[in-house]
Amino acid sequence: MTTPQTPAVLTPEELRLTHAYWRACNYLCAGMLYLRENPLLREPLKPEHIKNRLLGHWGSDPGQSFIWVHLNRLIKKYNLDLIYLSGPGHGAPATLSNCYLEGVYSEVYPSITQDVEGLQKFFKQFSFPGGIGSHCTPETPGSIHEGGELGYSLSHGFGAAFDNPDLIVTVCVGDGEAETGPLATSWHANKFLNPITDGAVLPILHLNGYKIANPTILARISAEELEQLFLGYGWTPHVIEGDDPEVMHQKMAALTEQCILDIQAIQAKARAGGEPVERPRWPMIIMRTPKGWTAPKEIDGHKLEGSWRAHQMPILDPVTNPAHMALLEGWLRSYKPEELFDENGTLLAEIRALAPEGTSRISGNPHANGGLLRKPLSMPDFRDYALDVKKPGQVEVSSTATIAKFLCDVMRQNMTSFRVFGPDETASNKLDGIYPGSHGKTWVNATLPEDADGGYLSPEGRVMEMLSEHTLEGWFEGYVLTGRHGFLSSYEAFIHIIDSMFNQHAKWLEKSKLELRWRASISSVNLLISSLVWRQDHNGFTHQDPGFLDLVTNKSPEITRIYLPPDANCLLSVTDHILRSTDYVNVVVADKAPHLQYLTMDQAIKHCTKGIGIWDFASSDAGHEPDVVVACAGDIPTSEALAAVAILREHCKDLKIRFVNVVDLFRLMPERQHPHGLSDHEFDSLFTKDKPVIFNFHAYPTLIHKLTYRRTNHDNIHVRGYNEKGNINTPLELAILNKVDRYHIAMDVIDRVPSLQVSAAHLKEWLTDQMIDAVNYAHQEGIDRKEIREWKWPL
Amino acid sequence: MTTPQTPAVLTPEELRLTHAYWRACNYLCAGMLYLRENPLLREPLKPEHIKNRLLGHWGSDPGQSFIWVHLNRLIKKYNLDLIYLSGPGHGAPATLSNCYLEGVYSEVYPSITQDVEGLQKFFKQFSFPGGIGSHCTPETPGSIHEGGELGYSLSHGFGAAFDNPDLIVTVCVGDGEAETGPLATSWHANKFLNPITDGAVLPILHLNGYKIANPTILARISAEELEQLFLGYGWTPHVIEGDDPEVMHQKMAALTEQCILDIQAIQAKARAGGEPVERPRWPMIIMRTPKGWTAPKEIDGHKLEGSWRAHQMPILDPVTNPAHMALLEGWLRSYKPEELFDENGTLLAEIRALAPEGTSRISGNPHANGGLLRKPLSMPDFRDYALDVKKPGQVEVSSTATIAKFLCDVMRQNMTSFRVFGPDETASNKLDGIYPGSHGKTWVNATLPEDADGGYLSPEGRVMEMLSEHTLEGWFEGYVLTGRHGFLSSYEAFIHIIDSMFNQHAKWLEKSKLELRWRASISSVNLLISSLVWRQDHNGFTHQDPGFLDLVTNKSPEITRIYLPPDANCLLSVTDHILRSTDYVNVVVADKAPHLQYLTMDQAIKHCTKGIGIWDFASSDAGHEPDVVVACAGDIPTSEALAAVAILREHCKDLKIRFVNVVDLFRLMPERQHPHGLSDHEFDSLFTKDKPVIFNFHAYPTLIHKLTYRRTNHDNIHVRGYNEKGNINTPLELAILNKVDRYHIAMDVIDRVPSLQVSAAHLKEWLTDQMIDAVNYAHQEGIDRKEIREWKWPL
Repeated sequence: MTTPQTPAVLTPEELRLTHAYWRACNYLCAGMLYLRENPLLREPLKPEHIKNRLLGHWGSDPGQSFIWVHLNRLIKKYNLDLIYLSGPGHGAPATLSNCYLEGVYSEVYPSITQDVEGLQKFFKQFSFPGGIGSHCTPETPGSIHEGGELGYSLSHGFGAAFDNPDLIVTVCVGDGEAETGPLATSWHANKFLNPITDGAVLPILHLNGYKIANPTILARISAEELEQLFLGYGWTPHVIEGDDPEVMHQKMAALTEQCILDIQAIQAKARAGGEPVERPRWPMIIMRTPKGWTAPKEIDGHKLEGSWRAHQMPILDPVTNPAHMALLEGWLRSYKPEELFDENGTLLAEIRALAPEGTSRISGNPHANGGLLRKPLSMPDFRDYALDVKKPGQVEVSSTATIAKFLCDVMRQNMTSFRVFGPDETASNKLDGIYPGSHGKTWVNATLPEDADGGYLSPEGRVMEMLSEHTLEGWFEGYVLTGRHGFLSSYEAFIHIIDSMFNQHAKWLEKSKLELRWRASISSVNLLISSLVWRQDHNGFTHQDPGFLDLVTNKSPEITRIYLPPDANCLLSVTDHILRSTDYVNVVVADKAPHLQYLTMDQAIKHCTKGIGIWDFASSDAGHEPDVVVACAGDIPTSEALAAVAILREHCKDLKIRFVNVVDLFRLMPERQHPHGLSDHEFDSLFTKDKPVIFNFHAYPTLIHKLTYRRTNHDNIHVRGYNEKGNINTPLELAILNKVDRYHIAMDVIDRVPSLQVSAAHLKEWLTDQMIDAVNYAHQEGIDRKEIREWKWPL
Repeated sequence: MTTPQTPAVLTPEELRLTHAYWRACNYLCAGMLYLRENPLLREPLKPEHIKNRLLGHWGSDPGQSFIWVHLNRLIKKYNLDLIYLSGPGHGAPATLSNCYLEGVYSEVYPSITQDVEGLQKFFKQFSFPGGIGSHCTPETPGSIHEGGELGYSLSHGFGAAFDNPDLIVTVCVGDGEAETGPLATSWHANKFLNPITDGAVLPILHLNGYKIANPTILARISAEELEQLFLGYGWTPHVIEGDDPEVMHQKMAALTEQCILDIQAIQAKARAGGEPVERPRWPMIIMRTPKGWTAPKEIDGHKLEGSWRAHQMPILDPVTNPAHMALLEGWLRSYKPEELFDENGTLLAEIRALAPEGTSRISGNPHANGGLLRKPLSMPDFRDYALDVKKPGQVEVSSTATIAKFLCDVMRQNMTSFRVFGPDETASNKLDGIYPGSHGKTWVNATLPEDADGGYLSPEGRVMEMLSEHTLEGWFEGYVLTGRHGFLSSYEAFIHIIDSMFNQHAKWLEKSKLELRWRASISSVNLLISSLVWRQDHNGFTHQDPGFLDLVTNKSPEITRIYLPPDANCLLSVTDHILRSTDYVNVVVADKAPHLQYLTMDQAIKHCTKGIGIWDFASSDAGHEPDVVVACAGDIPTSEALAAVAILREHCKDLKIRFVNVVDLFRLMPERQHPHGLSDHEFDSLFTKDKPVIFNFHAYPTLIHKLTYRRTNHDNIHVRGYNEKGNINTPLELAILNKVDRYHIAMDVIDRVPSLQVSAAHLKEWLTDQMIDAVNYAHQEGIDRKEIREWKWPL
């Protein structure tokens, strides 16, 4: 672990200007925390200049600006393409101040001008009602990392670096954030970075010692342990420590330059060719500076700079406490704003000259507004991968295995802009058909001869697998936020591991799409949920949770889509659609096991385009008002509903059944609440105004009520779905336990169609017997009866 | 990193018996994967002896049994109190086989006897419909760790060790699991373990090299990096590596003994007193053995033992492939069952003698059925902490600060069995009033003088803070699963980080409580959700997500409870109730900021006991049928609803309003669906059968519809709640954006009460003007108008 001995990298003049630039940043940070008027302190500070509520974070601001200022020097010196991700997200003032000083803020928000008036607005809007947040939000130009929830900065950074060979992604990791699980494992992402075809990630662990109210773990372990930890993670750690700005500027100038040169040397060596790619020990920096660096040393006898007191507002009551007002004024004036800004309130040109220009500015780098760089995928025609379905419900095929071939060719046609992510489950989810087109799986770590066997591993591999849903989702988000495309599959129950990441990305998308016209559209985050609740024959209860959809329906209708394709051709159509889409989180629910296939490609396209429709082959209402509507959503509930209809049609010849299948779940919502929603008229024409509706649903049944509770016929909609009943069960047994099976659905129809209640009494008995037999057989033989396993739609 | 040089710790006879015990374990593991008949292979293996579906995991079984067998020796030799947590949860056969051989399985499940017949049933039920799962589920005696979702074994282990000074918790961490974020950060839990008052945790990283379909990261980094990583995490790593059983038995006997002695030495030194407690470098083991150790070396020319092929079923098709049948039979017979079990099918006594007896058996240790050890909390009278509320709605107090004093005394009275957990947010959530009774916060790491300042840090501290919701929840679960008590607070939006942990614990509780009578009741997991959506003045959109309640309502009504106490006395009453309860996940939603107080302690007890009720002081229906019901749940929606009622009562003198407040959310559900549910009659008598109901709700409004959609008056229930609208806003502005504010609620009433639609038209205009003024003022001044901030209920 090297600690540079203060080589004089900067000339005295460079040092003076660098320090001036940093003072300007710090002044702006403090100004936005406190001031609503008098932005350059051209009058003595008075209570009326101070905001009524003081809300914001000072703690990591000076350290982050310090990093940024030194990166600027190297961008100019080496003509770097470099972005910066702020892990301590509540240190947004650092990003904002640099963004303002570089001029980008004024370009994006023209009312925030580079003068006294603009500065006053810039200060006032910060953490102010109707203004902007105190962490890096979508409103922050130059940022692709939402700082509201901690833990994902490094995985986002890696996502940005993949397939961007000329990009350097600097990630400032907060030492509080570093305690989170997602961050702690994301250091291992260096085993997935190809030094030839990917860019570099330069993490800077900002060890400022304190979280909100506690010291951080990493700040209090020994220097030796700290070094070992990062060596163990596979990095080359470099420590910089101190608080004297003059000394620290020289150290930081030397160290950051060394890291950039090391990165370039690693890349040059790998890219020279000839040698197999080995995992480099990339440099990383541990920067130990005081929390709230350059704040007053003390307040009321308590330590301020370098303590948790400097985490948020260092001085809490300047308006009511004159001594604190004086302390605040002295602190603000310590940055000497009069030496930094001209008469007009504009940063002096000689200082401004330290920052790069145009798209070389960190805050103006197009990678941080990735939609600007996004190119649509080159797509093969998904129809070419269609299953030849001659008659509905005759053959069983894995829908996910079918789209794997399509995804394989999407991969082949987009070898630098499309990646597939899975937590060690790509093969388990039957998507291993992608490997022939993906150079196998990404792996920049030691290999063994047997690795060739079954989805090989390679630094060129483009399917990314790590047993961390957090890391994968973080990579995926970073990848699309910088203008590329992707696809992630997960076991259904464990997608909940990234519930909060979904929430945060959905919120980012909503703000970006609906409020910030300057953010260009990015590719959707496409989540395939497989290994579904209904097929957990040995995994049992822990693997049964279809509740992710409930969360998705809480988020803005403008950015959420849920699809439940009932068969492979529908899944193909949906997959094509989502890969072309932008600015959504698309959630697709499709099981990996072989299931019956129903629709031809043409029928599937039509069905998916409408999103909901009557299946004529299964219906017996012949276009008339039916006696009952049997509706379904999801592959497995669809096949059970069909089997129920087959029983009913055999035994109750006169019964007029309408069979409705739902692919696009939001069609159920009213059109005034969701852009995909059916009008009440359309809904009524499908579901009738007063006939019983038996709805067999993939997930928790209450979700259907949540989506349809304002519909005319709502009182007659009877929903079956997963009811938290299960353990080790055969597929049919699990369906029976939760009453989504053919027998229960048929009985539901009988119970709700008045004409059947007497005439089908015998049928009900038979259905009950069938159920009992089915469970007994399963418990005896460990499998479902052959006629269940091989059931086909009767032609 | 030491690698013992095979000292001959075991005598030849001990070695023979140890190996025999291990062979018995391995035989049982393989048997439960494959056999439905012929359990001891007393006839040649035939297809009909094999299960119809082969579902289970072999990969980590032999390694885990290997560990267990060697722990048994030390338990006996040193009379240890020791439990074992299986991180690679799908290796349940290892736990199950040891549990069976120790006799505990037959004690818990008497039909599974210690003979041929019992063995046949034991094999057949495994991963079989109606039987038990293939990972460690609640049905597994001796286990407190659900193995369905990976990542929490080590935090569960630490939770078990806290305040159990004589307990050693061995945690086998899978190298797949080790890639998850939650596991990766939980190694740092050693900074929170007090060597005097806590037990020890001995982690064994089982480096068997492969996940489902990929090598693991940690298995492929260099030995040097691996050592550095664990040194960096603060452990003393010991490596054991190999595949020759004879050599490995000697190595493992020596190494495990060394670790136990090191643990005892560390504890003895710390407990001798005199010295300040320093963080020990506890031992941990890295055990590198082949995946699927002792399986056939090859199958069809592919590597089997030591490859991902040995992860699940090593041989997939014995029934249809005679060569594979022969391979299977040869493999099973390689363990020589005829030398291990007597005529009766019982393990030979000389082998059985290696395992401990009674509660010394790992599988019979009462810590693994912690309810057996649980003692109720000694509780102060919560009424003693009551706020003196003379008139409703006159003073503002922080409800969480109020219960902090109560929790402080709960802590004082239960200094070895109650802990409080918070992700660096205890003080932020205004619970720092606990510190005087908690010896501050747990911290077994370096300290600085200034740490005394504001909630001090100490190895004796009992409030546990780390910036990892995963680790805290894992500790909490481990702590209650071993019979103790706790309380966790979190920011509302970030409780989603542990959605999946909640799901898994809820599932564990449901099975334990409803199906497994032998598992004794454990304390509830109590989650206080604070820093609510409605008070995110500077955190903004990312901190606004009240959707955790949606997930909670998906889980079994038998184990979930949700409380929204409207004021401090109600929160006191609820807190007392939940701390006394068992076998629930209790979710309490209460904001930290000062809010108006309404109920006297007596009123609060009555209100919370009923869970829902009419507030007479706010109502104007005087016991008659009202014109409108204004209902609310949650502290902030309650105060806005009250303010709306105050406006309406001032301006619409004749209007008969009934004001209903809901504390216990599940009262809204039908009684047939939830044990707390109101009967339809009770519901109708509160909410009427046909009058408009305006319901002001804390969370997403659709949740109320989900809970009430079968109620008589459902069509007239109009719900307001969070609608995903917000950014940086004053409290009132945010309420207005989501229409939960006083003005919107008053307008909702006007719009729905026919008699008001004309008479109150002028009032509606005034309300609209008020809203516009409120937002304008907020955007100008950064705060709400004084009359809003200081609003009181008019007496």
